[in-house]
Amino acid sequence: MSQSQFAPPWQVSRWFNSAPLALADLRGRVVVVHAFQMLCPACAMQALPQMQRVQQLFPAERLTVIGLHTVFEHHEAQAPPALEAFLHEYRYSFPVGVDQHTDGDPLPLTMRTYAMQGTPTLLLIDAQGRLREQHFGVLDDMALGVALGELLGELDGCR
Amino acid sequence: MSQSQFAPPWQVSRWFNSAPLALADLRGRVVVVHAFQMLCPACAMQALPQMQRVQQLFPAERLTVIGLHTVFEHHEAQAPPALEAFLHEYRYSFPVGVDQHTDGDPLPLTMRTYAMQGTPTLLLIDAQGRLREQHFGVLDDMALGVALGELLGELDGCR
Amino acid sequence: MSQSQFAPPWQVSRWFNSAPLALADLRGRVVVVHAFQMLCPACAMQALPQMQRVQQLFPAERLTVIGLHTVFEHHEAQAPPALEAFLHEYRYSFPVGVDQHTDGDPLPLTMRTYAMQGTPTLLLIDAQGRLREQHFGVLDDMALGVALGELLGELDGCR
Amino acid sequence: MSQSQFAPPWQVSRWFNSAPLALADLRGRVVVVHAFQMLCPACAMQALPQMQRVQQLFPAERLTVIGLHTVFEHHEAQAPPALEAFLHEYRYSFPVGVDQHTDGDPLPLTMRTYAMQGTPTLLLIDAQGRLREQHFGVLDDMALGVALGELLGELDGCR
Repeated sequence: MSQSQFAPPWQVSRWFNSAPLALADLRGRVVVVHAFQMLCPACAMQALPQMQRVQQLFPAERLTVIGLHTVFEHHEAQAPPALEAFLHEYRYSFPVGVDQHTDGDPLPLTMRTYAMQGTPTLLLIDAQGRLREQHFGVLDDMALGVALGELLGELDGCR
Repeated sequence: MSQSQFAPPWQVSRWFNSAPLALADLRGRVVVVHAFQMLCPACAMQALPQMQRVQQLFPAERLTVIGLHTVFEHHEAQAPPALEAFLHEYRYSFPVGVDQHTDGDPLPLTMRTYAMQGTPTLLLIDAQGRLREQHFGVLDDMALGVALGELLGELDGCR
Repeated sequence: MSQSQFAPPWQVSRWFNSAPLALADLRGRVVVVHAFQMLCPACAMQALPQMQRVQQLFPAERLTVIGLHTVFEHHEAQAPPALEAFLHEYRYSFPVGVDQHTDGDPLPLTMRTYAMQGTPTLLLIDAQGRLREQHFGVLDDMALGVALGELLGELDGCR
Repeated sequence: MSQSQFAPPWQVSRWFNSAPLALADLRGRVVVVHAFQMLCPACAMQALPQMQRVQQLFPAERLTVIGLHTVFEHHEAQAPPALEAFLHEYRYSFPVGVDQHTDGDPLPLTMRTYAMQGTPTLLLIDAQGRLREQHFGVLDDMALGVALGELLGELDGCR
């Protein structure tokens, strides 16, 4: 991973499993953001279970996992009450923000800002707030682990 | 599997992926019914993919796979338009019936009739329309295969 | 599965996990024979674990699982003492026969008799001793379950 | 991972897939050593396939995977010709050294030097030749990836 731009702030209309969280508040931690839609099969069957494994491997003070619900289709079926039921049934306990919509645009704001191609999209943000990796699709566990290990190694003393 | 009662008819308010289907129309085939909820994790991650594997293994004239959406919680989030989006995203092509609700009862009619304990619930119905097995939870592939093989063996000539 | 020839007897030079077993002694049971080599990856990683799952699903009086060590390469490395160590380490407890060699022929006798193409090869023998299926490679669990269910259904009363 | 002692040299009587390799020759690379026995189920079914995934993820100039055949039981069945057949059948192409035995000791020399408790044992050695982690058993892919990412991050500039 190379030096990169600072990750732009996200715009979230509602949080689940957390009080409102700003990216700026998370300096000093590695931040893993997973942009997903609850009815996207690769999100539900692969990426979200993987995020749960990441969450279980690290204390949140060191590495924070965040879900971002970037709904760009099936808006009705994936509205916040449906998402709430989904998160409850799957017992996901990491913070999940609902990416904010503006009138007339099917794509939500943060998804536009990051120019995401679809879901799932993984964002890796280092302890200084720089966007170090953006990946459309699911990395396998080992490749994701390597990327996280590099960012955590920096956090532990080599910047 | 022992001799059993005839499977009671299902009561379905709407069909996806099919014209209305009555159990009586399916005599002469083995029928595998999978009662599920789209937001039930064991349904979405295990039972429905297994139903798809069953569907791919047999011609429908010999063995028909049917989904029954037995919503007993999160009624709003699992309403028919949400189910339609779910089936579309997961590319499930077997017939899915929406188990019918009556006013004021959170449990739908067919779920009550069969006294199902929850989702997923598997029903195996033989070519003569008898309910041969009802199982709450997910059978492993081999055990399900054995049960299907027994019913198909009967169909092929030994009753 | 169609009507078939009687399965020819196997020729075994040594048994592990069992006293000598003749196919003729197993009439009245479904018999699943898995021809393997201990150093064949698809055998060790897929077919033998599957045989163990089959063994655990049925009482031996109803369905008997048998391994047949059909060594046609690496004869030294796969000699009976090596097989014994292998079976011990993997905790396989079903009967395993060593397919008999004759001088100068790299292929063992039973492998020749059945014209097996390689390992793993699965043989399904019905309760009357007829060879009902011979399959080179690994079936998935559901397909194997279906084949076993058909043979068990016959055993239970429809012949 | 903390600062650590230098990894002691290994003592190998024979190499497969490579000319003789000394640990000292590998300075500047991350080195992953996997001590295994070919007839150990957790080695054959989990640890060696994982090593192959590691090998495929990185160029050897950056991260080198090495197998160490630490035979402490079934010496006959796991002798070098058997190992050669095993490596050939499984298509493992990373260097594998045979840990050297001395007369009368069932445990080989390198296994004793590192006080390994059994197989599989994973050794992670950094680019400066220090033993950074020794683990008896199999790490999951993500945890191993994190450990590798930390060592690779150091290699890339923060020591």
